[in-house]
Amino acid sequence: MTAQASFSNYIDTHAEAFIKRLGEAVAIQSISSDARRRQDVIVMGNWLNGQLHQLGVETKLVDLGTHEMQGQTLQLPPAIIGRLGSDPAKKTVLVYGHYDVQPALKSDGWDTDPFTLVVDEDSGRLIGRGSTDDKGPILGWLNVIEAHKNLGIAMPVNMRFCFEGMEESGSEGLDECIEEEVKKGKEGWFDGVDCVCISDNYWQNTRTPALTYGLRGIAYFSINVSGPGQDLHSGLFGRTVHEPMTDLIKLMSKLVNHNGNILIPGIDEMIPRPDDDELKLYQVMDYTTADIEQAAGGKVALSEDKTVVLMGRMREPSLSLHGIQGAFSDPGCKTVIPAKVGGKFSIRLVPPQTPEKITPLVNAYLESEFAKFNSKNKMQVEYLHGGKPWVADVKHWNFEAAKKAIEAVYKKTPDYTREGGSIPVTLTFAESLGVNVLLLPMGRADDGAHSTNEKLDRTNFIQGSKVLGTYLYEVAAAA
Amino acid sequence: MTAQASFSNYIDTHAEAFIKRLGEAVAIQSISSDARRRQDVIVMGNWLNGQLHQLGVETKLVDLGTHEMQGQTLQLPPAIIGRLGSDPAKKTVLVYGHYDVQPALKSDGWDTDPFTLVVDEDSGRLIGRGSTDDKGPILGWLNVIEAHKNLGIAMPVNMRFCFEGMEESGSEGLDECIEEEVKKGKEGWFDGVDCVCISDNYWQNTRTPALTYGLRGIAYFSINVSGPGQDLHSGLFGRTVHEPMTDLIKLMSKLVNHNGNILIPGIDEMIPRPDDDELKLYQVMDYTTADIEQAAGGKVALSEDKTVVLMGRMREPSLSLHGIQGAFSDPGCKTVIPAKVGGKFSIRLVPPQTPEKITPLVNAYLESEFAKFNSKNKMQVEYLHGGKPWVADVKHWNFEAAKKAIEAVYKKTPDYTREGGSIPVTLTFAESLGVNVLLLPMGRADDGAHSTNEKLDRTNFIQGSKVLGTYLYEVAAAA
Ligand SMILES: [Zn+2]
Ligand SMILES: [Zn+2]
Ligand SMILES: [Zn+2]
Ligand SMILES: [Zn+2]
Repeated sequence: MTAQASFSNYIDTHAEAFIKRLGEAVAIQSISSDARRRQDVIVMGNWLNGQLHQLGVETKLVDLGTHEMQGQTLQLPPAIIGRLGSDPAKKTVLVYGHYDVQPALKSDGWDTDPFTLVVDEDSGRLIGRGSTDDKGPILGWLNVIEAHKNLGIAMPVNMRFCFEGMEESGSEGLDECIEEEVKKGKEGWFDGVDCVCISDNYWQNTRTPALTYGLRGIAYFSINVSGPGQDLHSGLFGRTVHEPMTDLIKLMSKLVNHNGNILIPGIDEMIPRPDDDELKLYQVMDYTTADIEQAAGGKVALSEDKTVVLMGRMREPSLSLHGIQGAFSDPGCKTVIPAKVGGKFSIRLVPPQTPEKITPLVNAYLESEFAKFNSKNKMQVEYLHGGKPWVADVKHWNFEAAKKAIEAVYKKTPDYTREGGSIPVTLTFAESLGVNVLLLPMGRADDGAHSTNEKLDRTNFIQGSKVLGTYLYEVAAAA
Repeated sequence: MTAQASFSNYIDTHAEAFIKRLGEAVAIQSISSDARRRQDVIVMGNWLNGQLHQLGVETKLVDLGTHEMQGQTLQLPPAIIGRLGSDPAKKTVLVYGHYDVQPALKSDGWDTDPFTLVVDEDSGRLIGRGSTDDKGPILGWLNVIEAHKNLGIAMPVNMRFCFEGMEESGSEGLDECIEEEVKKGKEGWFDGVDCVCISDNYWQNTRTPALTYGLRGIAYFSINVSGPGQDLHSGLFGRTVHEPMTDLIKLMSKLVNHNGNILIPGIDEMIPRPDDDELKLYQVMDYTTADIEQAAGGKVALSEDKTVVLMGRMREPSLSLHGIQGAFSDPGCKTVIPAKVGGKFSIRLVPPQTPEKITPLVNAYLESEFAKFNSKNKMQVEYLHGGKPWVADVKHWNFEAAKKAIEAVYKKTPDYTREGGSIPVTLTFAESLGVNVLLLPMGRADDGAHSTNEKLDRTNFIQGSKVLGTYLYEVAAAA
C-alpha cells in the first residue's frame, strides 16, 4: 500500500473515533458573539491547542487583547498559530479555520440539543452547532495528521496553521496578528508558506464538490435623513411637515429594481460582460434554479435561466436593502413620524469594484436624487464598512492539486465556484503572503451553517478528510 | 358678588391648595402601559374616587375585567362613573377625563423627577408627568366643585362624570362601558345628558385659548411582502432572488409624495375644497409656520403659508410611513435579506372619509402597483385598525357657552381648531348619546404631553379652572 492509500484506509477505519472527537468539539459552546459564552470560546481554543500538541504540532497562542462587547470589556480568545515540519525539500501549506460558532438555542427551532452532536443513522447526518462551520473542517485536518502520526508515515508537506476564535464576530484582531507574523519574515512562523487552504465554505448544491476561487467584496451604507427635533405624532403633524421617512423610502426605492439591476449609474456598468469561455463555466455547472429556490425556501429565483442566477451571485454586484434604523419596527400600530431614520443597504462588489471606487458614485447619485425632492430635511450618506472582492487564479497548482484530490476521492470533477459573500481573511492571506489561496469546502449547500439543525454529512466529514490529505499529496507532487 | 364671581374668587384664593392637590395626583405613577405600574393606576383611581366622594359626588366603579399585557393577565383599572345633582330644571353636563399617564423616567431626559410636581416660580410652570395630560384638567373640575361646595353655592348644572384609567393604552373596555350605561336609559347614570365636555387636548399655540370641533380619523395598514422561506444572507443570495424589501420599499414609495400629497387615487379627491368662509377661518387663526416649526423642533414646515399648514392638519387627510416590521432595525451592519417584511403606514381621515370607504382604494392601488413588478414574492395589504373622523357643530349652544367662558376669563376670542389626531371616546359619546360634544383644552401646545418635562402652566391651571366653571354657568344660561 502507498502512504496515500494507507492514510485513506486509516481514515475509513477510524471514522467512529473521529466523529466522537467532533462530538467533543461541538459540546463546547464557543459562541463568540455572546459575552456570557466568552469563557467557553477560550476553553475551546485550549481544547484545540491540546489536540494539536498531542499530534505533534508546535503551537503558540497569540493574545489578541481585549474588546468591548455588550457593555463589557472582554478578553479576546487567542489566535492559535501552529507548525508541523520544516523540511526545506517540501512545500509548506498554511491552513486556516475558526473554532468559534454561531449562537444556538434549542428554542430557536432545533430538533435536538444544538451542543450535543447527534449521529442520525438514517440520513447519515452529524447534527450539531459547529459541525460544518467550522469545527468539522478543522477536525478534518487533525484526522489527516493523526493518521500519519499513528501510521508512522511522514507528512507529504510542511504545515502551518492559523486558527481563530472570533470569526463569527468580525475576526477581531486577526488581520493585525497575521500581518505581524508575516512581517517577522524568517523569524516568523509563516515564512516559506507556498500556498493557503481554507475550508470554511460550502458546495453549491448537495451533489458536487466545489473549489472556490472568488469572493465578492462589500460596501455597507446608511442613508441618514433627519428633520424634526424629536419623533412626532402623526395625528398632530401629519401633512404639516416634511417627514424623513417619506424622503428615505423614496431614496431607497431608487437603488435597485425588482430584477436586481442596480440603478446607481456606473456600478453595473463597471463589470465587463462575460466572454464565451466564462459563460460556458456557468452553463456546465451542476446547478439548477431549483437548487437556489430550495436553498432560499421559496420560488423566488430572479430568472428561470440558471446561468443568469449563477452569474448574479458569482460575477455581478448586488444591492440589498436591509432595513431602517430609527423607524417603528415592532409589532403593533405606533402612529409615529420618526425624526431621524437611517436606511441600511449594502452593495456586494466584484472586480474591478472596490469600496473606494463605488462610494463616490453612491454619494453623488443619492445627493442628486435628494436635491430633486426640494425637501427641508437633511440627508447624509454614511459609509459604514466594506471590503474588497477577491479572485484567485484557478490554473495555479494549488487549485490543480485540490481538483485531483476531489477527483480521486469523489470520482467527480469539482464545480469551480465564486461565493457571493466575503471571507475577509482570504484577502488578508492573499495580500500579506502574496501566494495562491484556495477555498476547499467540506460541507454541502444545505448544511445550515448559521441556521437551526446545522449538520455535516458523515460522508462529507470522512471523504472530506480524505480530500484534505490527498490534496496535500497532490501539492507535494505538483511541479 | 354673584355666585359666578364668588366662585372665581375662590379659585384665585385657593390656588396653592389646588396645586398641592395636583402634586398628590402626579405623585401616583399611574402608567397604564406598564404592567409593573398597574397597581398604581388602580391606586390613582381610588384616590380620585375618594376626592369625588369628599366633594359630594356619588360614584360607582365599573369593573372592566382583565386583559393580556406583557405576557400577563392584568386587572383593568375601573371606570369611575359619577353624578352630582338631579335637578330637572337644570341642564346636565357630562365630563370625561383619564387618570392614567404616559411612562416617564428621569433618564429619558427629564430635568426633574417626573413624579414630583415641581413648581417653577420663574416660568410659572407646574412640571410633572400627568400635569397637563390629563390630571390637571380632571382636577380643574374638582376645583370648580370644591369652590361651590365650600362657598355653599348651588352648581349651575347637573353633572355627570366618566373617568378612565386606560386612555394611554387604547381605552380598553371603555366604549362598551359607556354604551351599556347609555342603554340602561332611565336606569342609567347618563340619562338626560344634554352635552359633553372633554378637556384632554391643547391650544394650538402658547397664546390663544382654543375650542376644538373636529378630530381626524385613522386607518392603519401593513403591506406584507414575503418570498423566501427564511431570512437569507445577502452574500449568498444577493442578485439571485426577488427580495421582499425591494418590493416593499417600492410600494411604500408610491403612497405619498414629499409635499404630503397622497398618491393613492381617490383619497385626496374625496375631500371638498374649502369655501371662502372656511378659508377665512384658517387665515384669522393666531398661528404662524414658526409655531409648527417650534413644536416640531425643526425648520420642516411643508409650506410657508400658514393656511396650507393649518388645512394640512385640520381638514386634509395625511399619510405617514411609520416603519418596517421584520427588517433589520438595530445599529450596526447586518447583511440580511429579510424574508418577510411588513411596511406600516396610516392615513389620517377627515369627513366624509371612513376606514370602510378608503380601505378598498388602498387595496386596489397597491395590488395594481405590485402587479406591475412581476415579482415572485407575495404581497398582501393588512388593515390593522382604524376609527372614523369627527366634526361637531360649532354653532351649538355648547360651543357658544365655552366661547363666552373663554372671553370672560381670558379676554380673548378662542381659536376654533380641528385636531389632527383622534380621541376615540369623543365619537363614542357623540354617537351613543346623540348630543353635542365639545373639546375644551386647558393646556398649551408646548406642554409636552407625551414627552419629557411635561408641564401645565400655573395660569392655565388656575384660569382654566375658572373657564370650566364659567362654562357651566354659560351652559345654564343658554336658551
Ligand atoms: Zn465559518
Ligand atoms: Zn460562520
Ligand atoms: Zn390625554
Ligand atoms: Zn395622552
